[in-house]
Amino acid sequence: MSDLRRLSINQATTRSWSIPDLVDAAATAGLGGVGLWREPVQELGVEKTAALVEDAGLVVTSLCRAGFFTMAEGAARRSALAENRAAIDEAAALGAQVLVVVAGGLPDGQSDLVAARERVVEAIGELEPHAAAAGVKLAIEPLHPMFCSDRCVVSTLDQALDIADNFDADVVGVVVDAYHVWWDPNVLGAIACAGDRIMSWQVCDWVTPLPAGVLMGRGVMGEGCIDLRLLDDAVTAAGYCGLVEVEIFNDGLDALPGADVLERVLAGYRSCLA
Amino acid sequence: MSDLRRLSINQATTRSWSIPDLVDAAATAGLGGVGLWREPVQELGVEKTAALVEDAGLVVTSLCRAGFFTMAEGAARRSALAENRAAIDEAAALGAQVLVVVAGGLPDGQSDLVAARERVVEAIGELEPHAAAAGVKLAIEPLHPMFCSDRCVVSTLDQALDIADNFDADVVGVVVDAYHVWWDPNVLGAIACAGDRIMSWQVCDWVTPLPAGVLMGRGVMGEGCIDLRLLDDAVTAAGYCGLVEVEIFNDGLDALPGADVLERVLAGYRSCLA
Repeated sequence: MSDLRRLSINQATTRSWSIPDLVDAAATAGLGGVGLWREPVQELGVEKTAALVEDAGLVVTSLCRAGFFTMAEGAARRSALAENRAAIDEAAALGAQVLVVVAGGLPDGQSDLVAARERVVEAIGELEPHAAAAGVKLAIEPLHPMFCSDRCVVSTLDQALDIADNFDADVVGVVVDAYHVWWDPNVLGAIACAGDRIMSWQVCDWVTPLPAGVLMGRGVMGEGCIDLRLLDDAVTAAGYCGLVEVEIFNDGLDALPGADVLERVLAGYRSCLA
Repeated sequence: MSDLRRLSINQATTRSWSIPDLVDAAATAGLGGVGLWREPVQELGVEKTAALVEDAGLVVTSLCRAGFFTMAEGAARRSALAENRAAIDEAAALGAQVLVVVAGGLPDGQSDLVAARERVVEAIGELEPHAAAAGVKLAIEPLHPMFCSDRCVVSTLDQALDIADNFDADVVGVVVDAYHVWWDPNVLGAIACAGDRIMSWQVCDWVTPLPAGVLMGRGVMGEGCIDLRLLDDAVTAAGYCGLVEVEIFNDGLDALPGADVLERVLAGYRSCLA
Protein backbone atom coordinates (compact mmCIF):
# COMPACT_ATOMS: atom_id res chain seq x y z
CA MET A 1 0.00 0.00 0.00
CA SER A 2 1.13 3.57 -0.56
CA ASP A 3 2.51 5.46 2.40
CA LEU A 4 -0.71 7.33 3.06
CA ARG A 5 -2.82 4.18 2.86
CA ARG A 6 -1.17 3.23 6.12
CA LEU A 7 -2.48 6.39 7.77
CA SER A 8 -5.76 6.84 9.61
CA ILE A 9 -7.04 10.05 11.12
CA ASN A 10 -9.03 10.20 14.30
CA GLN A 11 -11.91 12.62 14.11
CA ALA A 12 -10.86 14.34 17.33
CA THR A 13 -7.88 15.65 15.36
CA THR A 14 -10.04 17.61 12.91
CA ARG A 15 -12.88 18.58 15.15
CA SER A 16 -14.30 21.21 12.80
CA TRP A 17 -15.26 18.49 10.34
CA SER A 18 -18.44 16.42 10.39
CA ILE A 19 -18.06 12.71 9.73
CA PRO A 20 -19.01 13.12 6.03
CA ASP A 21 -16.42 15.91 5.66
CA LEU A 22 -13.81 13.79 7.41
CA VAL A 23 -14.50 10.70 5.33
CA ASP A 24 -14.46 12.68 2.12
CA ALA A 25 -11.18 14.40 2.96
CA ALA A 26 -9.52 11.19 4.13
CA ALA A 27 -10.53 9.35 0.97
CA THR A 28 -9.46 12.23 -1.28
CA ALA A 29 -6.07 12.40 0.43
CA GLY A 30 -5.55 8.67 -0.07
CA LEU A 31 -5.66 7.71 3.60
CA GLY A 32 -6.59 4.22 4.70
CA GLY A 33 -8.96 4.86 7.56
CA VAL A 34 -10.62 7.03 10.14
CA GLY A 35 -11.02 6.78 13.91
CA LEU A 36 -14.46 7.71 15.18
CA TRP A 37 -16.21 8.64 18.42
CA ARG A 38 -19.49 7.24 19.59
CA GLU A 39 -21.42 10.49 20.05
CA PRO A 40 -21.01 11.90 16.50
CA VAL A 41 -21.55 8.40 15.09
CA GLN A 42 -24.82 8.14 17.00
CA GLU A 43 -25.85 11.56 15.73
CA LEU A 44 -25.28 10.64 12.11
CA GLY A 45 -26.53 7.09 12.62
CA VAL A 46 -24.40 4.00 12.96
CA GLU A 47 -25.57 2.29 9.76
CA LYS A 48 -25.27 5.48 7.74
CA THR A 49 -21.74 6.05 9.06
CA ALA A 50 -20.73 2.47 8.29
CA ALA A 51 -21.98 2.77 4.70
CA LEU A 52 -20.28 6.13 4.22
CA VAL A 53 -16.91 4.81 5.36
CA GLU A 54 -17.17 1.63 3.34
CA ASP A 55 -18.28 3.42 0.18
CA ALA A 56 -15.24 5.68 0.51
CA GLY A 57 -12.95 2.66 0.60
CA LEU A 58 -11.85 3.38 4.15
CA VAL A 59 -11.83 1.35 7.35
CA VAL A 60 -12.77 2.42 10.87
CA THR A 61 -9.52 1.88 12.72
CA SER A 62 -11.03 2.60 16.12
CA LEU A 63 -14.21 3.53 17.87
CA CYS A 64 -13.78 5.64 21.01
CA ARG A 65 -14.71 4.56 23.53
CA ALA A 66 -15.72 2.03 26.12
CA GLY A 67 -14.58 1.77 29.73
CA PHE A 68 -15.06 4.07 32.72
CA PHE A 69 -15.98 1.14 34.91
CA THR A 70 -13.76 1.46 37.97
CA MET A 71 -16.54 2.03 40.48
CA ALA A 72 -17.58 -0.60 43.04
CA GLU A 73 -20.55 -2.87 42.40
CA GLY A 74 -23.88 -1.07 42.33
CA ALA A 75 -26.23 0.79 40.05
CA ALA A 76 -23.56 3.07 38.57
CA ARG A 77 -21.41 0.10 37.66
CA ARG A 78 -24.33 -1.79 36.12
CA SER A 79 -25.18 1.30 34.10
CA ALA A 80 -21.57 1.67 32.94
CA LEU A 81 -21.40 -1.96 31.86
CA ALA A 82 -24.69 -1.65 29.96
CA GLU A 83 -23.25 1.37 28.19
CA ASN A 84 -20.17 -0.67 27.34
CA ARG A 85 -22.33 -3.37 25.78
CA ALA A 86 -24.01 -0.71 23.67
CA ALA A 87 -20.57 0.50 22.59
CA ILE A 88 -19.64 -3.04 21.60
CA ASP A 89 -22.78 -3.32 19.48
CA GLU A 90 -22.00 -0.02 17.77
CA ALA A 91 -18.42 -1.10 17.09
CA ALA A 92 -19.77 -4.30 15.52
CA ALA A 93 -22.24 -2.42 13.36
CA LEU A 94 -19.49 -0.06 12.21
CA GLY A 95 -17.06 -2.87 11.54
CA ALA A 96 -14.55 -0.96 13.67
CA GLN A 97 -11.20 -2.71 13.94
CA VAL A 98 -11.13 -2.05 17.69
CA LEU A 99 -13.24 -0.59 20.43
CA VAL A 100 -10.94 1.53 22.60
CA VAL A 101 -11.27 0.86 26.32
CA VAL A 102 -10.27 3.67 28.70
CA ALA A 103 -10.65 2.26 32.18
CA GLY A 104 -11.66 5.38 34.08
CA GLY A 105 -9.99 7.03 37.05
CA LEU A 106 -10.35 6.63 40.77
CA PRO A 107 -13.99 6.83 41.83
CA ASP A 108 -14.78 10.18 43.50
CA GLY A 109 -13.29 10.53 46.94
CA GLN A 110 -11.51 7.20 46.82
CA SER A 111 -7.82 6.44 47.01
CA ASP A 112 -7.71 2.65 46.70
CA LEU A 113 -5.93 2.33 43.39
CA VAL A 114 -5.35 -1.41 43.74
CA ALA A 115 -9.09 -2.03 44.11
CA ALA A 116 -9.95 0.24 41.18
CA ARG A 117 -7.46 -1.63 39.03
CA GLU A 118 -8.88 -4.98 40.04
CA ARG A 119 -12.32 -3.79 39.00
CA VAL A 120 -10.96 -3.12 35.51
CA VAL A 121 -10.08 -6.79 35.13
CA GLU A 122 -13.49 -7.80 36.45
CA ALA A 123 -15.31 -5.46 34.07
CA ILE A 124 -13.44 -6.70 31.03
CA GLY A 125 -14.19 -10.23 32.15
CA GLU A 126 -17.88 -9.38 32.14
CA LEU A 127 -17.71 -7.76 28.72
CA GLU A 128 -15.49 -10.27 26.95
CA PRO A 129 -18.25 -12.78 26.05
CA HIS A 130 -20.40 -10.02 24.57
CA ALA A 131 -17.45 -8.69 22.58
CA ALA A 132 -16.47 -12.16 21.38
CA ALA A 133 -20.03 -12.88 20.24
CA ALA A 134 -20.13 -9.56 18.39
CA GLY A 135 -16.73 -10.07 16.82
CA VAL A 136 -15.41 -6.89 18.45
CA LYS A 137 -11.87 -6.45 19.71
CA LEU A 138 -11.51 -4.64 23.03
CA ALA A 139 -8.30 -2.59 23.01
CA ILE A 140 -7.22 -1.49 26.47
CA GLU A 141 -5.52 1.88 26.30
CA PRO A 142 -3.01 2.76 28.99
CA LEU A 143 -3.17 6.51 29.51
CA HIS A 144 -0.27 8.66 30.62
CA PRO A 145 0.12 8.56 34.42
CA MET A 146 -0.93 12.20 34.63
CA PHE A 147 -4.47 10.92 33.92
CA CYS A 148 -4.39 8.20 36.56
CA SER A 149 -6.70 9.87 39.06
CA ASP A 150 -9.36 11.23 36.75
CA ARG A 151 -9.39 9.24 33.52
CA CYS A 152 -7.55 5.97 33.54
CA VAL A 153 -6.03 3.84 36.28
CA VAL A 154 -4.26 1.77 33.60
CA SER A 155 -1.02 3.72 33.36
CA THR A 156 1.57 1.61 31.55
CA LEU A 157 1.68 -0.75 28.62
CA ASP A 158 2.97 -3.52 30.88
CA GLN A 159 -0.05 -3.06 33.10
CA ALA A 160 -2.46 -3.12 30.14
CA LEU A 161 -0.80 -6.31 28.90
CA ASP A 162 -1.08 -7.92 32.33
CA ILE A 163 -4.81 -7.22 32.20
CA ALA A 164 -5.19 -8.39 28.60
CA ASP A 165 -3.31 -11.62 29.36
CA ASN A 166 -6.30 -12.78 31.38
CA PHE A 167 -8.32 -13.01 28.18
CA ASP A 168 -8.42 -14.42 24.67
CA ALA A 169 -5.91 -12.58 22.47
CA ASP A 170 -8.45 -12.53 19.66
CA VAL A 171 -10.81 -10.45 21.78
CA VAL A 172 -8.76 -8.38 24.25
CA GLY A 173 -5.61 -6.47 23.40
CA VAL A 174 -4.04 -3.06 23.82
CA VAL A 175 -3.72 0.33 22.21
CA VAL A 176 -0.20 1.66 21.94
CA ASP A 177 -0.51 5.45 21.88
CA ALA A 178 2.87 7.14 21.62
CA TYR A 179 1.72 10.10 23.72
CA HIS A 180 0.90 7.89 26.67
CA VAL A 181 3.85 5.49 26.65
CA TRP A 182 6.89 7.23 25.15
CA TRP A 183 8.39 8.14 28.56
CA ASP A 184 8.25 4.56 29.91
CA PRO A 185 11.72 3.13 30.57
CA ASN A 186 10.35 -0.28 29.52
CA VAL A 187 8.29 0.81 26.54
CA LEU A 188 10.37 -1.08 23.99
CA GLY A 189 10.36 -4.24 26.08
CA ALA A 190 6.62 -3.98 26.59
CA ILE A 191 5.95 -3.47 22.89
CA ALA A 192 8.11 -6.48 22.04
CA CYS A 193 6.21 -8.59 24.57
CA ALA A 194 2.87 -7.33 23.35
CA GLY A 195 3.11 -9.05 19.98
CA ASP A 196 -0.33 -9.60 18.51
CA ARG A 197 -2.01 -8.03 21.51
CA ILE A 198 -1.26 -4.71 19.80
CA MET A 199 -4.59 -3.90 18.18
CA SER A 200 -4.16 -0.18 17.60
CA TRP A 201 -1.20 2.16 17.13
CA GLN A 202 -1.81 5.86 17.66
CA VAL A 203 0.54 8.79 17.25
CA CYS A 204 0.94 12.48 17.97
CA ASP A 205 3.73 14.33 19.78
CA TRP A 206 4.61 15.50 23.29
CA VAL A 207 4.96 19.25 23.63
CA THR A 208 5.44 21.44 26.68
CA PRO A 209 4.34 23.45 28.51
CA LEU A 210 1.20 21.43 29.08
CA PRO A 211 -2.03 23.45 29.16
CA ALA A 212 -4.33 23.63 32.19
CA GLY A 213 -6.17 20.34 32.51
CA VAL A 214 -3.42 18.74 30.37
CA LEU A 215 -5.87 17.06 27.98
CA MET A 216 -5.66 19.42 25.03
CA GLY A 217 -1.90 19.81 24.77
CA ARG A 218 -0.87 17.26 22.17
CA GLY A 219 1.31 18.22 19.25
CA VAL A 220 1.46 17.18 15.63
CA MET A 221 4.13 14.61 14.89
CA GLY A 222 7.49 16.33 14.63
CA GLU A 223 6.52 19.28 16.84
CA GLY A 224 7.61 17.59 20.06
CA CYS A 225 10.17 15.20 21.45
CA ILE A 226 8.82 11.70 20.87
CA ASP A 227 11.05 9.43 18.80
CA LEU A 228 8.11 8.17 16.73
CA ARG A 229 10.20 6.22 14.27
CA LEU A 230 11.75 4.22 17.09
CA LEU A 231 8.32 3.33 18.43
CA ASP A 232 6.90 2.67 14.96
CA ASP A 233 9.75 0.29 14.21
CA ALA A 234 9.17 -1.46 17.54
CA VAL A 235 5.44 -1.83 16.94
CA THR A 236 6.10 -3.19 13.46
CA ALA A 237 8.79 -5.57 14.71
CA ALA A 238 6.29 -6.85 17.28
CA GLY A 239 4.08 -7.95 14.40
CA TYR A 240 1.60 -5.10 14.14
CA CYS A 241 0.61 -4.61 10.53
CA GLY A 242 -2.44 -2.36 10.87
CA LEU A 243 -2.76 1.33 10.24
CA VAL A 244 -1.19 4.12 12.24
CA GLU A 245 -3.87 6.46 13.56
CA VAL A 246 -3.25 10.12 14.30
CA GLU A 247 -5.15 11.31 17.36
CA ILE A 248 -4.40 14.84 18.48
CA PHE A 249 -6.32 16.76 21.13
CA ASN A 250 -5.32 20.39 20.81
CA ASP A 251 -7.39 23.53 21.29
CA GLY A 252 -5.27 25.41 18.77
CA LEU A 253 -5.90 22.82 16.06
CA ASP A 254 -9.60 22.73 16.88
CA ALA A 255 -9.82 26.40 15.94
CA LEU A 256 -8.41 25.75 12.45
CA PRO A 257 -10.20 24.54 9.32
CA GLY A 258 -9.98 20.77 8.97
CA ALA A 259 -8.05 21.05 5.70
CA ASP A 260 -5.28 23.06 7.39
CA VAL A 261 -5.02 20.52 10.19
CA LEU A 262 -4.90 17.62 7.73
CA GLU A 263 -2.14 19.33 5.80
CA ARG A 264 -0.02 19.64 8.96
CA VAL A 265 -0.80 16.07 9.92
CA LEU A 266 0.29 14.78 6.51
CA ALA A 267 3.51 16.79 6.69
CA GLY A 268 4.20 15.45 10.16
CA TYR A 269 3.43 11.92 9.11
CA ARG A 270 5.73 12.13 6.09
CA SER A 271 8.64 13.55 8.06
CA CYS A 272 8.33 11.33 11.13
CA LEU A 273 6.83 8.06 10.00
CA ALA A 274 6.56 7.52 6.25
CA MET B 1 9.86 11.07 69.12
CA SER B 2 6.57 12.94 69.14
CA ASP B 3 4.48 12.82 66.02
CA LEU B 4 5.55 16.24 64.82
CA ARG B 5 9.24 15.53 65.42
CA ARG B 6 8.94 13.15 62.48
CA LEU B 7 7.81 15.98 60.23
CA SER B 8 9.99 18.24 58.12
CA ILE B 9 8.80 21.12 55.98
CA ASN B 10 10.37 22.05 52.70
CA GLN B 11 10.74 25.77 52.25
CA ALA B 12 9.04 25.68 48.84
CA THR B 13 5.85 24.89 50.77
CA THR B 14 5.86 28.18 52.67
CA ARG B 15 7.41 30.43 50.11
CA SER B 16 6.43 33.66 51.85
CA TRP B 17 8.84 32.84 54.67
CA SER B 18 12.54 33.60 54.77
CA ILE B 19 14.80 30.85 56.10
CA PRO B 20 14.93 32.43 59.59
CA ASP B 21 11.11 32.66 59.63
CA LEU B 22 10.80 29.07 58.49
CA VAL B 23 13.30 27.75 61.02
CA ASP B 24 11.67 29.67 63.82
CA ALA B 25 8.18 28.47 62.92
CA ALA B 26 9.29 24.86 62.47
CA ALA B 27 11.06 24.80 65.83
CA THR B 28 8.14 26.49 67.59
CA ALA B 29 5.70 23.97 66.13
CA GLY B 30 7.88 21.09 67.30
CA LEU B 31 8.89 19.84 63.87
CA GLY B 32 12.06 17.84 63.35
CA GLY B 33 13.52 19.43 60.26
CA VAL B 34 13.39 21.65 57.22
CA GLY B 35 14.13 21.10 53.55
CA LEU B 36 16.05 23.90 51.89
CA TRP B 37 16.90 25.20 48.42
CA ARG B 38 20.32 26.28 47.27
CA GLU B 39 19.49 29.81 46.11
CA PRO B 40 17.96 31.12 49.38
CA VAL B 41 20.65 29.30 51.35
CA GLN B 42 23.32 31.04 49.29
CA GLU B 43 21.60 34.37 49.85
CA LEU B 44 21.58 33.95 53.62
CA GLY B 45 24.97 32.25 53.65
CA VAL B 46 25.60 28.54 54.01
CA GLU B 47 27.39 28.72 57.37
CA LYS B 48 24.83 31.10 58.82
CA THR B 49 22.00 28.83 57.67
CA ALA B 50 23.69 25.78 59.13
CA ALA B 51 24.12 27.47 62.50
CA LEU B 52 20.55 28.75 62.50
CA VAL B 53 19.10 25.28 61.86
CA GLU B 54 21.36 23.58 64.39
CA ASP B 55 20.68 26.16 67.10
CA ALA B 56 16.96 25.58 66.59
CA GLY B 57 17.41 21.87 67.19
CA LEU B 58 16.40 20.99 63.64
CA VAL B 59 17.99 18.98 60.86
CA VAL B 60 18.18 19.78 57.16
CA THR B 61 16.35 16.82 55.67
CA SER B 62 17.18 17.78 52.09
CA LEU B 63 18.97 20.34 49.99
CA CYS B 64 17.42 20.96 46.57
CA ARG B 65 19.04 20.40 44.24
CA ALA B 66 21.69 18.87 42.04
CA GLY B 67 21.30 17.26 38.64
CA PHE B 68 20.27 18.69 35.26
CA PHE B 69 23.11 16.89 33.56
CA THR B 70 21.52 15.03 30.65
CA MET B 71 23.31 16.93 27.89
CA ALA B 72 26.05 15.35 25.77
CA GLU B 73 29.71 15.93 26.59
CA GLY B 74 30.85 19.50 26.11
CA ALA B 75 31.09 22.84 27.87
CA ALA B 76 27.50 22.83 29.09
CA ARG B 77 27.93 19.42 30.67
CA ARG B 78 31.23 20.38 32.31
CA SER B 79 29.57 23.50 33.69
CA ALA B 80 26.63 21.48 35.01
CA LEU B 81 28.94 18.99 36.72
CA ALA B 82 30.95 21.82 38.30
CA GLU B 83 27.69 23.26 39.61
CA ASN B 84 26.83 19.85 41.01
CA ARG B 85 30.14 19.72 42.87
CA ALA B 86 29.36 23.12 44.36
CA ALA B 87 25.97 21.78 45.45
CA ILE B 88 27.68 18.81 47.10
CA ASP B 89 29.97 21.17 49.01
CA GLU B 90 27.00 23.25 50.16
CA ALA B 91 25.13 20.13 51.27
CA ALA B 92 28.19 19.09 53.27
CA ALA B 93 28.53 22.51 54.90
CA LEU B 94 24.83 22.46 55.80
CA GLY B 95 24.98 18.93 57.13
CA ALA B 96 22.00 18.16 54.87
CA GLN B 97 20.85 14.58 55.15
CA VAL B 98 20.59 14.32 51.37
CA LEU B 99 21.28 16.33 48.27
CA VAL B 100 18.32 15.84 45.93
CA VAL B 101 19.30 14.94 42.38
CA VAL B 102 16.81 15.79 39.61
CA ALA B 103 18.32 14.46 36.42
CA GLY B 104 17.00 17.01 33.93
CA GLY B 105 14.88 16.48 30.85
CA LEU B 106 15.68 15.80 27.23
CA PRO B 107 18.22 18.28 25.91
CA ASP B 108 16.59 20.88 23.62
CA GLY B 109 15.55 19.50 20.28
CA GLN B 110 16.56 15.95 21.12
CA SER B 111 14.44 12.83 21.32
CA ASP B 112 16.97 10.16 22.29
CA LEU B 113 15.67 9.28 25.72
CA VAL B 114 17.87 6.20 26.08
CA ALA B 115 21.01 8.28 25.56
CA ALA B 116 19.85 10.98 27.97
CA ARG B 117 19.21 8.33 30.60
CA GLU B 118 22.62 6.78 30.09
CA ARG B 119 24.20 10.17 30.67
CA VAL B 120 22.49 10.33 34.07
CA VAL B 121 24.37 7.21 35.15
CA GLU B 122 27.62 8.63 33.80
CA ALA B 123 27.14 11.94 35.58
CA ILE B 124 26.44 10.31 38.92
CA GLY B 125 29.50 8.16 38.38
CA GLU B 126 31.57 11.31 37.98
CA LEU B 127 30.07 12.93 41.06
CA GLU B 128 30.09 9.95 43.41
CA PRO B 129 33.74 10.25 44.55
CA HIS B 130 33.26 13.93 45.36
CA ALA B 131 30.07 13.18 47.29
CA ALA B 132 31.68 10.27 49.14
CA ALA B 133 34.66 12.41 50.14
CA ALA B 134 32.31 15.16 51.36
CA GLY B 135 30.10 12.72 53.24
CA VAL B 136 27.07 13.76 51.17
CA LYS B 137 24.31 11.40 50.10
CA LEU B 138 23.03 11.84 46.55
CA ALA B 139 19.32 11.05 46.44
CA ILE B 140 18.03 10.46 42.92
CA GLU B 141 14.45 11.69 42.61
CA PRO B 142 12.24 10.09 40.00
CA LEU B 143 9.82 12.74 38.82
CA HIS B 144 6.32 12.05 37.56
CA PRO B 145 6.38 11.04 33.88
CA MET B 146 4.63 14.30 32.96
CA PHE B 147 8.01 15.95 33.63
CA CYS B 148 10.02 13.53 31.52
CA SER B 149 10.70 15.86 28.59
CA ASP B 150 11.51 19.06 30.44
CA ARG B 151 12.69 18.25 33.97
CA CYS B 152 13.62 14.68 34.64
CA VAL B 153 14.18 11.66 32.44
CA VAL B 154 14.15 9.46 35.55
CA SER B 155 10.46 8.63 35.68
CA THR B 156 9.93 5.68 38.02
CA LEU B 157 11.28 4.46 41.31
CA ASP B 158 12.42 1.22 39.67
CA GLN B 159 14.44 3.24 37.20
CA ALA B 160 15.99 5.38 39.94
CA LEU B 161 16.93 2.23 41.84
CA ASP B 162 18.48 0.68 38.74
CA ILE B 163 20.68 3.77 38.48
CA ALA B 164 21.50 3.84 42.19
CA ASP B 165 22.44 0.16 42.15
CA ASN B 166 25.55 1.04 40.16
CA PHE B 167 26.91 2.86 43.19
CA ASP B 168 27.70 2.54 46.89
CA ALA B 169 24.46 2.49 48.91
CA ASP B 170 26.04 4.80 51.48
CA VAL B 171 26.45 7.49 48.85
CA VAL B 172 23.74 7.09 46.21
CA GLY B 173 20.09 6.41 46.94
CA VAL B 174 16.63 7.64 46.03
CA VAL B 175 13.94 10.07 47.04
CA VAL B 176 10.47 8.62 47.32
CA ASP B 177 8.07 11.50 46.68
CA ALA B 178 4.45 10.40 46.87
CA TYR B 179 3.40 12.90 44.22
CA HIS B 180 5.73 11.39 41.65
CA VAL B 181 5.26 7.68 42.30
CA TRP B 182 1.76 7.06 43.68
CA TRP B 183 0.30 6.06 40.28
CA ASP B 184 2.97 3.41 39.58
CA PRO B 185 1.52 -0.11 39.43
CA ASN B 186 4.78 -1.36 40.95
CA VAL B 187 5.28 1.36 43.55
CA LEU B 188 4.92 -0.97 46.53
CA GLY B 189 7.26 -3.55 45.03
CA ALA B 190 9.81 -0.87 44.21
CA ILE B 191 9.67 0.59 47.72
CA ALA B 192 10.15 -2.86 49.24
CA CYS B 193 13.16 -3.47 46.98
CA ALA B 194 14.59 -0.05 47.72
CA GLY B 195 15.39 -0.85 51.36
CA ASP B 196 18.11 1.41 52.66
CA ARG B 197 18.44 3.14 49.31
CA ILE B 198 15.50 5.27 50.46
CA MET B 199 17.20 8.42 51.67
CA SER B 200 14.27 10.82 51.61
CA TRP B 201 10.50 10.50 51.88
CA GLN B 202 8.42 13.42 50.66
CA VAL B 203 4.68 13.91 50.72
CA CYS B 204 1.89 16.11 49.40
CA ASP B 205 -1.26 15.17 47.48
CA TRP B 206 -2.45 14.76 43.90
CA VAL B 207 -5.28 17.09 42.93
CA THR B 208 -6.93 17.77 39.60
CA PRO B 209 -7.39 19.63 37.37
CA LEU B 210 -3.69 20.26 36.92
CA PRO B 211 -2.76 23.90 36.27
CA ALA B 212 -1.00 25.09 33.12
CA GLY B 213 2.61 23.98 33.22
CA VAL B 214 1.59 21.34 35.81
CA LEU B 215 4.35 22.28 38.27
CA MET B 216 2.34 24.30 40.76
CA GLY B 217 -0.65 22.03 41.23
CA ARG B 218 0.19 19.98 44.30
CA GLY B 219 -2.26 19.65 47.14
CA VAL B 220 -1.89 19.47 50.90
CA MET B 221 -2.10 15.94 52.27
CA GLY B 222 -5.73 14.87 52.44
CA GLU B 223 -6.90 17.23 49.71
CA GLY B 224 -6.30 14.72 46.94
CA CYS B 225 -6.38 11.03 46.15
CA ILE B 226 -3.02 9.61 47.25
CA ASP B 227 -3.20 6.84 49.83
CA LEU B 228 -0.38 8.36 51.87
CA ARG B 229 -0.72 5.98 54.79
CA LEU B 230 -0.24 3.00 52.48
CA LEU B 231 2.94 4.52 51.07
CA ASP B 232 4.17 5.64 54.49
CA ASP B 233 3.72 2.13 55.85
CA ALA B 234 5.58 0.72 52.84
CA VAL B 235 8.48 3.15 53.24
CA THR B 236 8.69 2.35 56.94
CA ALA B 237 8.49 -1.40 56.31
CA ALA B 238 11.36 -1.03 53.85
CA GLY B 239 13.49 0.24 56.71
CA TYR B 240 13.30 3.99 56.30
CA CYS B 241 13.39 5.66 59.69
CA GLY B 242 14.06 9.27 58.74
CA LEU B 243 11.70 12.20 58.68
CA VAL B 244 8.78 12.74 56.34
CA GLU B 245 9.20 15.98 54.44
CA VAL B 246 6.27 18.00 53.11
CA GLU B 247 7.04 19.60 49.78
CA ILE B 248 4.14 21.37 48.09
CA PHE B 249 4.38 23.57 45.02
CA ASN B 250 1.14 25.48 44.77
CA ASP B 251 0.47 29.03 43.61
CA GLY B 252 -2.53 29.31 45.89
CA LEU B 253 -0.48 28.42 48.97
CA ASP B 254 2.31 30.76 47.91
CA ALA B 255 -0.14 33.65 48.18
CA LEU B 256 -0.97 32.82 51.81
CA PRO B 257 0.93 33.77 54.98
CA GLY B 258 3.34 31.03 55.98
CA ALA B 259 1.53 30.46 59.27
CA ASP B 260 -1.71 29.67 57.45
CA VAL B 261 0.06 27.22 55.18
CA LEU B 262 1.79 25.55 58.12
CA GLU B 263 -1.52 25.16 59.90
CA ARG B 264 -3.02 23.38 56.89
CA VAL B 265 0.08 21.24 56.53
CA LEU B 266 -0.07 20.19 60.18
CA ALA B 267 -3.76 19.34 59.89
CA GLY B 268 -3.08 17.30 56.76
CA TYR B 269 -0.15 15.55 58.36
CA ARG B 270 -2.17 14.65 61.45
CA SER B 271 -5.10 13.28 59.46
CA CYS B 272 -3.12 11.39 56.82
CA LEU B 273 0.14 10.35 58.40
CA ALA B 274 0.44 10.81 62.15
